[in-house]
Amino acid sequence: MLGPCLRSGALFLALAPSITSVAADEDGHRWTLIDQLTVPEVRALALSADGRSVLYVARIADPNSDRTTAQLRHINLRTGDTRDILNAGWIDQLARIPGTDDWSARVDMGEGVQLYRISGSGMATPLVVHPPTAVFGDAEGAVYPGYGHGPLATGVRAYSWSPDGRWLWYVVLDGAPFRSAIRYDDAVTIERGRRRAWGQATASIFLRRPDGQDILIAKRPRSDRLTFFGHSFVQWKADEVRFNVMETDGDGQPKRVTLGWSKTHERMRVVNDAVRPAYWRLPGPRGGVLSSKGFGETRDLVETQSNGKLHSYGRFPFAVGDARATGGFLSANGARAIAGYRTIAEPRFGLAVVEGRRIWTIGGKFSLTNCDFTAALDKGACIAQSQTSPPEVVRINVDNGQVNRVASVSSAHEQIAPLAVEPRTWVNRHGYKADGYIIWPRGYKNGHRYPAIVITHAGDADDRFANRENQWEYPAQLFAEHGYVVLLVNTPRSHQTTAIDAAYEAWVNETRDIPPRTIQDLIWLNEVASFEAAVEDLIETGAVDPARVGIAGYSRGSQSVNVTMTQSKMFRAASSGDGGYLEPAFYPDLPGSYDTVFGGPPTDAGALPNYQRLAPSLRADQVCGAMLLQMATPYTGAVDLYAALRRAHVPAQITLYPGATAASDETHIFHIPSNRIMAMQENVAWFDYWLLGKRNPKSPVASRYLNWDKMREAAPQRCGNSAWRLKD
Amino acid sequence: MLGPCLRSGALFLALAPSITSVAADEDGHRWTLIDQLTVPEVRALALSADGRSVLYVARIADPNSDRTTAQLRHINLRTGDTRDILNAGWIDQLARIPGTDDWSARVDMGEGVQLYRISGSGMATPLVVHPPTAVFGDAEGAVYPGYGHGPLATGVRAYSWSPDGRWLWYVVLDGAPFRSAIRYDDAVTIERGRRRAWGQATASIFLRRPDGQDILIAKRPRSDRLTFFGHSFVQWKADEVRFNVMETDGDGQPKRVTLGWSKTHERMRVVNDAVRPAYWRLPGPRGGVLSSKGFGETRDLVETQSNGKLHSYGRFPFAVGDARATGGFLSANGARAIAGYRTIAEPRFGLAVVEGRRIWTIGGKFSLTNCDFTAALDKGACIAQSQTSPPEVVRINVDNGQVNRVASVSSAHEQIAPLAVEPRTWVNRHGYKADGYIIWPRGYKNGHRYPAIVITHAGDADDRFANRENQWEYPAQLFAEHGYVVLLVNTPRSHQTTAIDAAYEAWVNETRDIPPRTIQDLIWLNEVASFEAAVEDLIETGAVDPARVGIAGYSRGSQSVNVTMTQSKMFRAASSGDGGYLEPAFYPDLPGSYDTVFGGPPTDAGALPNYQRLAPSLRADQVCGAMLLQMATPYTGAVDLYAALRRAHVPAQITLYPGATAASDETHIFHIPSNRIMAMQENVAWFDYWLLGKRNPKSPVASRYLNWDKMREAAPQRCGNSAWRLKD
Repeated sequence: MLGPCLRSGALFLALAPSITSVAADEDGHRWTLIDQLTVPEVRALALSADGRSVLYVARIADPNSDRTTAQLRHINLRTGDTRDILNAGWIDQLARIPGTDDWSARVDMGEGVQLYRISGSGMATPLVVHPPTAVFGDAEGAVYPGYGHGPLATGVRAYSWSPDGRWLWYVVLDGAPFRSAIRYDDAVTIERGRRRAWGQATASIFLRRPDGQDILIAKRPRSDRLTFFGHSFVQWKADEVRFNVMETDGDGQPKRVTLGWSKTHERMRVVNDAVRPAYWRLPGPRGGVLSSKGFGETRDLVETQSNGKLHSYGRFPFAVGDARATGGFLSANGARAIAGYRTIAEPRFGLAVVEGRRIWTIGGKFSLTNCDFTAALDKGACIAQSQTSPPEVVRINVDNGQVNRVASVSSAHEQIAPLAVEPRTWVNRHGYKADGYIIWPRGYKNGHRYPAIVITHAGDADDRFANRENQWEYPAQLFAEHGYVVLLVNTPRSHQTTAIDAAYEAWVNETRDIPPRTIQDLIWLNEVASFEAAVEDLIETGAVDPARVGIAGYSRGSQSVNVTMTQSKMFRAASSGDGGYLEPAFYPDLPGSYDTVFGGPPTDAGALPNYQRLAPSLRADQVCGAMLLQMATPYTGAVDLYAALRRAHVPAQITLYPGATAASDETHIFHIPSNRIMAMQENVAWFDYWLLGKRNPKSPVASRYLNWDKMREAAPQRCGNSAWRLKD
Repeated sequence: MLGPCLRSGALFLALAPSITSVAADEDGHRWTLIDQLTVPEVRALALSADGRSVLYVARIADPNSDRTTAQLRHINLRTGDTRDILNAGWIDQLARIPGTDDWSARVDMGEGVQLYRISGSGMATPLVVHPPTAVFGDAEGAVYPGYGHGPLATGVRAYSWSPDGRWLWYVVLDGAPFRSAIRYDDAVTIERGRRRAWGQATASIFLRRPDGQDILIAKRPRSDRLTFFGHSFVQWKADEVRFNVMETDGDGQPKRVTLGWSKTHERMRVVNDAVRPAYWRLPGPRGGVLSSKGFGETRDLVETQSNGKLHSYGRFPFAVGDARATGGFLSANGARAIAGYRTIAEPRFGLAVVEGRRIWTIGGKFSLTNCDFTAALDKGACIAQSQTSPPEVVRINVDNGQVNRVASVSSAHEQIAPLAVEPRTWVNRHGYKADGYIIWPRGYKNGHRYPAIVITHAGDADDRFANRENQWEYPAQLFAEHGYVVLLVNTPRSHQTTAIDAAYEAWVNETRDIPPRTIQDLIWLNEVASFEAAVEDLIETGAVDPARVGIAGYSRGSQSVNVTMTQSKMFRAASSGDGGYLEPAFYPDLPGSYDTVFGGPPTDAGALPNYQRLAPSLRADQVCGAMLLQMATPYTGAVDLYAALRRAHVPAQITLYPGATAASDETHIFHIPSNRIMAMQENVAWFDYWLLGKRNPKSPVASRYLNWDKMREAAPQRCGNSAWRLKD
């Protein structure tokens, strides 16, 4: 099926020894709560100019300080020697400084996030330190939300080195003190769905010349999302540095504009405001942009050239352009391109190398993420990981596709005896395919029926190690240690047919091209059928006890969980994380999206039946399992679902995890270790109680059992005796 | 109609000279914006023990400091000499200290609200100063909301002197620092309708003995609303001090409990947890509680004795027990009682004196509010005011009912040439009566048709001077100066028939005894008919131009405005203040209330037609006038109404008035003078533009005209050409 140029075999050979040794060593310890908590998240990796060493940033929860901190590590790619060179509250945007042996990164060393030069020995010297700062985070007065971190005072927002390393483009922020001001119309309506008051700030874009002088080239308002969110896509041309900003056109609509600053004439021009720059750029060797097109098990790899012509490289069982894959690279001479890909089936990340008409891939039984390469794209380094193999640094020989292990990222996790994890593809009763993994309970025995928990987050069940974007605070590996079969199940793939693809396109683009019920059928009701198919499979083979099945998911997965619990009779317990989409309460905040899914507002008599068909809170009396709602924010939609469940006497709990201060919140992806520990233990206690009838008096949530007992006693019997009757 | 013992005639004689002199003096100036802003609000008045002098507190907006401050003034009741003795951020709970010549009050002199002793010379000495404090206000971390004031750090919450002045009962508050805590269930659902995070605090109740020693007699949690909101109803018995607290019973329901502390045994007991203490107590001379019962133009004045027996004093054209009237007093010997009343028709405040079987009233063409009396109830002082007469201090001779003017409260407002104000009662097409006033434009001429503005706030159109509880930031007097006929119109009186009374009872008590459509008809649609009747009256007599009529109301009045604009075709412009009740968005926050009014949630197909019948945002396409929504809080309901109006192309603006800091909001009754000035000018500009087609380029809201022009051009023509076509 794969093309003749695929050389993925090399990875097996290179990684096999390390993996095999851990897998075989049954003396390795079992997963613990702390193992779940401290899975490292590699956020950036950068090779030295000579390709001999690499720096990477790992974010790791520290239960002692109750903070998630960033560690910067230096690896000698030849010897594998690893040195921790910096520990900070925040490190990102790590890059080598062209023409030097040093790196640069945004680091919070206590003065806010600023730009530093970092040597291989770990010395950090300030490049740009801008004390005024503006805050990003889920906090009162923040200028923009954060993503999985506490309030982050930010002096330097973004930067870019010219290819010769002599010029530096950068953005600094000045937070404005609160100014009491009367607000009108749209500035008031945006408050509707908002918990925290926004702050104001100005961004200043500077160019540092080779002589060290800083030139202010633009000032941008807070409304410029591109500048404030760091997607400036800086391009260095011979005399011009170009970058994107967001302008507001006459109708108040946001519009991307590319600005260009001439280094010799020292003035700005609008480069082209007609072409909409691509959000995700994978440069190809023909001067165009690489992407994957089409449907089904293989996708067309094409290059869209600047004249609009498409060049096809053939069909492959992967897609490039996935935001989770590593980015795109073009060699200094422009002849070779590397694009990260994700396989269509059994999703896994690898690299596609494009050179002339030749295409070859690097990857195989492991996922390659966070890569960097030399300027010639002949050598590189990546993070390699899989469902069972913790992240490690590997050396890449691009020419022959060879991948060699260099160093562990987390030796602690390599001490864990791997669980048996098996990829699966399930076909549901509508004929739609969904991927995923089965994590078998430790010591699984044929012929014994186990309890099971489905964990879902759209398409994030892929070949990465205990990936938190997928499993959130549902400790999948700990569940398997506790005797559960864990099913990591994706929703049906969106590119498998034109019908489901069209439904997703209509949903995302908020069109009304597809009837609402068709969208409901192809997206949410379709995934319910997939979750049921995955579980039925294991019930049929005798592996799973049909009376003890649960389901968990956060964010997009909370939609899956809430819909599944109000449509299916299969699940006796559920945990739904920080969501509320599909609830009528959100209509005014998301009218376009809801019009697509429901055909109008809930107060439209014609649309109301579409809400009653899908909106979870309107179907609370259909629920046959206990529901836990774990929240970082008290979304109205979730509060309404909780209230509806309790009105229907369904056992339910809503738990709000707090921020570190009165003026900030826990984030959608939790960043406070103590909250994570509690949330994971709450999930363990919840499923143990409702699926197994087990209680653990030592659990920190044991004080809740009394409430749960009361709810169990008062629960309706409509779902049959087995629904709530489990006893310890 | 009044009984033979009524002696209200005295008031005419006593007040006539001062009033007449102002009314006759047409050299007095016209109402200005600053006059509207600085109408003093008298909040407390207390007589000295000897009855010779009085202190009162006036809250007055100060445009220079942009704060509303409290002034404490001393009046010699014989000479009328007035001295400002204290100026502070906050002063309330003013009372004389029994057995001394001094007073006490809660005062914020920069250390939070604390308890001070105040001498007649104005010296303030600390009685209880408790630095920890807890904040009341619409602010992040406040323990409870405030009422028309900024965040108020509060050390002493409440106090009471024993009748001999030797013992002091008081409550101090200790705000708790923020503690990050996981919250569950009800502690999460309360977040749904909340903008600001609550803080925590503990209340400590002390008794100060005659020897000066303080005894801690109780500690109360924040959940005890009675203690935190100051309705402790302290009663001094021979050996026992009794006070009410709020406990939570086994089912989590709040319950009032009376505690008693024995001064000799120094211990607490529950006095009686079966009897529910009356919220509003008017002691009668038979040891019972006075109240008014029945329906129609006169009400039965009864005393409910402790054995449950009722004693009737006869029927009177007034009701006692209105929260806006002055409170109840009982003479030291228990033989004489005084209760504040409000007349049924042409609502006005006065005093009913009850002694044996004799009843007489004090009052007449002016309202008496904020009264205090000597212990024997033979002499007293009140604030007297009317629609045209600014508040003044009057001396009361209770025995003969004589009322004598002593001193002006606001000489500035006495310089204004009074407008012609006329009380009216209107009968609408359903036969229901509503009261109110017509403020005639300055220099009104018969035969000329004037523009008109209705201002409404339930029943607050009564005989008080430019009362802000009624007219909010709608500058009624300034409108009259600008040539508008202003109608201050109450909603139909709730006690006129058993049917409307039952509708109000069902609404307030959230029962489902009355069909939702009947409640809608009798309350909101009934008041629309009253507003129409009031305007039609003046159209018929030729005084009002039917093409230039507007309506304004805040809070309860915003319901009236929003319903009127979506049901009636009469009004071309409206201003709706800080409301949103009746909008579907509030259902989950107020399910009991909405079930009564609409018969269920909006997502119930059976209830939805009841929403479509009344909920303003669902009837936006019925609107024939421009709507301004002025907000202190961006309520979801108001945002939804604004969005619906704009979708229907109805000219509309929503304006959010800010708090003084990022962490606090403007309050429902505005407390920031600059916001008040802007809101009043916005109302003037709005009505001038949409009713008269006039623009004032010097108005601070002139920059909005461009938006208004655009909205006017794009407005639908369904209401006939006159709706938007006024030109300047």
